[in-house]
Parts: sequence; C-alpha cells; structure tokens
Amino acid sequence: MKLATVSTEHGFRVVAAKANGYVDLGPGDVGSLLASGGLPPAADGEVLEIDPARFAPVIPNPGKIICVGLNYRTHIIEMGRALPTRPTLFAKYPEALIGPHETLVLPPESESVDWEAELAVVIGHRVRRADGATAENAIAGYTVMNDVTLRDWQFRTQEWLQGKTWEATTPLGPHLVTPDELSSDAVISCAIDGEIVQKSTIADLLFSPVDLVSYISTILTLNPGDVIATGTTSGVGHARTPPRYLRHGQTMVTRVEGIGEMVTPVRRAS
Amino acid sequence: MKLATVSTEHGFRVVAAKANGYVDLGPGDVGSLLASGGLPPAADGEVLEIDPARFAPVIPNPGKIICVGLNYRTHIIEMGRALPTRPTLFAKYPEALIGPHETLVLPPESESVDWEAELAVVIGHRVRRADGATAENAIAGYTVMNDVTLRDWQFRTQEWLQGKTWEATTPLGPHLVTPDELSSDAVISCAIDGEIVQKSTIADLLFSPVDLVSYISTILTLNPGDVIATGTTSGVGHARTPPRYLRHGQTMVTRVEGIGEMVTPVRRAS
Repeated sequence: MKLATVSTEHGFRVVAAKANGYVDLGPGDVGSLLASGGLPPAADGEVLEIDPARFAPVIPNPGKIICVGLNYRTHIIEMGRALPTRPTLFAKYPEALIGPHETLVLPPESESVDWEAELAVVIGHRVRRADGATAENAIAGYTVMNDVTLRDWQFRTQEWLQGKTWEATTPLGPHLVTPDELSSDAVISCAIDGEIVQKSTIADLLFSPVDLVSYISTILTLNPGDVIATGTTSGVGHARTPPRYLRHGQTMVTRVEGIGEMVTPVRRAS
Repeated sequence: MKLATVSTEHGFRVVAAKANGYVDLGPGDVGSLLASGGLPPAADGEVLEIDPARFAPVIPNPGKIICVGLNYRTHIIEMGRALPTRPTLFAKYPEALIGPHETLVLPPESESVDWEAELAVVIGHRVRRADGATAENAIAGYTVMNDVTLRDWQFRTQEWLQGKTWEATTPLGPHLVTPDELSSDAVISCAIDGEIVQKSTIADLLFSPVDLVSYISTILTLNPGDVIATGTTSGVGHARTPPRYLRHGQTMVTRVEGIGEMVTPVRRAS
C-alpha cells in the first residue's frame, strides 16, 4: 500500500496511490491515522488526479524526527573512515518539514544550503527496548526525506542541530509505502537540474532500519508517526571540490525506487 | 506570578503558588494554557497543600526543547577555552521529562548518569527572527531543568543527542515564574545529598535568555510552551577527578533562587 497526505481547505485527507491516480480514504493525515490505531484498509473508489502542490509532508507533524549520520558503508569507506559501531543521532524539529513538491526557499542567512537524500522509516507501533522482531513489526513503512542542511550553520559549533532544523527546508514524502513494497536494494538518488549527484542503494546502509529502531528504542519510546531518517550517501555538495550548494532556479529531485520522488523547486527569498 | 502543573485523576490542573500553599486555577497545564492564549489572571481562593509527588513537569509536553551547551562565562574560562561567539544547540525530546519531585531511575544501560542544573526559558508568544525587544516580550517566564546526561551515551558519537534525551531522566519545574519575579543575578545550584556540587548565578550566562530567543528564532519559529534550557555551570560529575556520577539512594536538589527547587530521589532500576 502507498499512502499520501493531501492538504485541502478543510484540513488533511489521506489518499492511496493507484497506477493512474489516487483514491480518497477520508479525513486525517497519515501520521494521525497511525497514532489513532493504524492505516486504513485498501479501498477502491473514484480515481482522482491530485495537483502535486497539494501534497503535504506525508507525516505533517511527527512527535519526533530522529536523524542518523554516517550510515552508507561505501561512503564511509571512501572517506577513509572506520565503520562506526554505533549510529550518530541528531534531531530535527517538525517546523523543518515541507511538502514533497513544495518550493524550498533558500534562507537569506545562509550561503551553503546542501542536499542529503535519505530513506526515512515511519513508526507504526509504540515500542521501547525493542528486539529485532519487535522493531521490525513496529515499522509502518518508509518514505523519502531530503535532509537539507545549511552547512555554514551546521558547522558553527560541534552540534549539528542548528544547520539541520531550519524552518521549512526539509521535504518529506511523497508516499508512505508499507514494508512489503520496498525492495531491500531499492535505488536512492538525488538529482539537481537532471544531473544525478547522489546515487546508491539502501542495501548499503550500515545500520538497517530494524537496527535503528532497536537502538533508538533503547533510549526512548518510539511512537506511531515518529520518523527516523536513516542517513545519506556520498555526493553531497559540501564534500565536492569546489563545494556546490543549492542555487536559485534549480530543481532538486529526491527519489527512492518503490516509494516515489519529491520535486523541489529552489528559490532565493525575495 | 508563580504557576505549577499538577497531575490529578482527571488530568492536569494549573495552580498558583502562594506563601503558604497553592490556589487551584482550573484544568489544563501551563503549556496548554500558554498555547491557548496565555496565563490565567492571578486569583485568590482556598489555599491547598499539594503532595509534591503530584507536580508534573511544569510544561508536560513542549513542542520543542532546545538545549544550550557551554554558556557560563566563568566555567568556560576556567576550562581554558575561548568564549564562543555562537551558542551550541542540541535537542531533547519531551519523553525525557519527569516531574520536579519524581524519582530518577538510573537506566541499566549506563554507568555515568550526571547532573546539569539549568535555568530554562518558557516561550509565551510565537516569534520568528525576533529582535531583542520582541524576544524579551516572547518570554512567558522561567523554570528549572536538570539536564541529566548519560555521559557514556553522550560521547558514543560526536553528536550528544543520545546521551541527552534518555526517557524519563530530565526533571523540569517546579514552577514557571514570570520575568518580573526572577532576579538578574539569581543563584542557581545543584546539591547531591546536601553537598553543593554546582553553584553560580544567572548573571554569568554568556548568551542571555533574550539573546537565545533571538538567535534560535532566526532558525525556526518558537511557539508558546517551547522550552530553552540555557546551559549549565561548572561542577558536573564527569569533569571531576575522579569522575562522580549519580548513585542509587542519593537525592539531587536543583534550585534556582526565586523559582524553587526540584528534589529528585535517585534509584537504580530493580
């Protein structure tokens, strides 16, 4: 199943993706449905076309967004670093989120806004200190995040938070897909104006989604609708020579095979 | 005005502190009142005694908890470090909070649980990119936090989050005091079994509450009920020779003059 959250004049609605459009499943958003007992059953109905601008972040207001650093094996090795034994975790507040087709407005306070395509895990059941099987069962599904980062603010201090949680900079969506629909070696990519700048498969993740749910739930309870962004692969702009950052007029496309793509126009604040 | 949030069988209630007890101001918690339009007017009424165990975190479910590192001038200088020009920011999720008299259960996964007495700012009005005057006006009041930290988990990786947001480890309270009731050189302290281990005044803060609201609101919107923990002073256990950590059977008292004290029994999980 493949669900999305759509904004309407009367609040959010959940829709299910079909081959040729979307079927309306009723009021609410995917996060609130998870919190109130689970996803709706698959349903048939009138197939609608939806204006991409109406897609909201698939989980518009997660209780927690937990992000992982350094988690693609090939990328860590190519950087000449040892494989870490524990995941690096940092936070993002929900104010950072934008919809999967929403414009990314470059903040006037930064000159180095960068991309980070990521697979994101969405929690379906409350868990604490989950073993592998419990962790696996706690995953409602997967979506795509671009963990857009203001590098200048990220590196102002040792703690990355201030470069990671800038208001309205993090696309999340377009769909939540249930685990049965995600291939274990799905391709993940980011493209800027059609040029592929990041490309890997989720088989290269050092800490798997199940590992991460288990590890994080040792620390604190994970609740339905919580989001875990699993880290990015090589190819970010900041690591290039010379560095490259997002510029006014570009289009950033973030894609995970089997989930869908987010098309993000980039604009400088006027 | 000095307010607290109390747990009852029928949900939270807000109470106002008087010289000899508390006056009930009605249902809700201090955070939800801030979010729904502001603090109640001061009121007289029957003065009640309240069992300390019933005090909840004064803001039980903040939208955001934003913490500041390295912010006491004397402490930074004594560590031989240069004064930073920007605050170090990191996050804590609301699951970390406990009431101001609640028992701190030492997690079996850690051998180095440490104290950090802090002044906390509570936001009263929504602000973004606030100048000094706007930031000052956005502060509803102040409370006390002990930013209890699992040092072993904090330093597993460069990012501190996993040692900072452990479930049910961070006392917050007992009161929210309005800005007029907090002296600019109020004494802040932490005591373990009666021994003062941290003591300073909030006049030693490098980045003031107003500075922090202004800085953080540049990054993202601050909303009513959001909490900013302003950092801790010297005397943490981890920096001692030999290091000292919280142990089963101890009592930790965290106090800010003019706000009140939190009395935290410490127990090892059985």
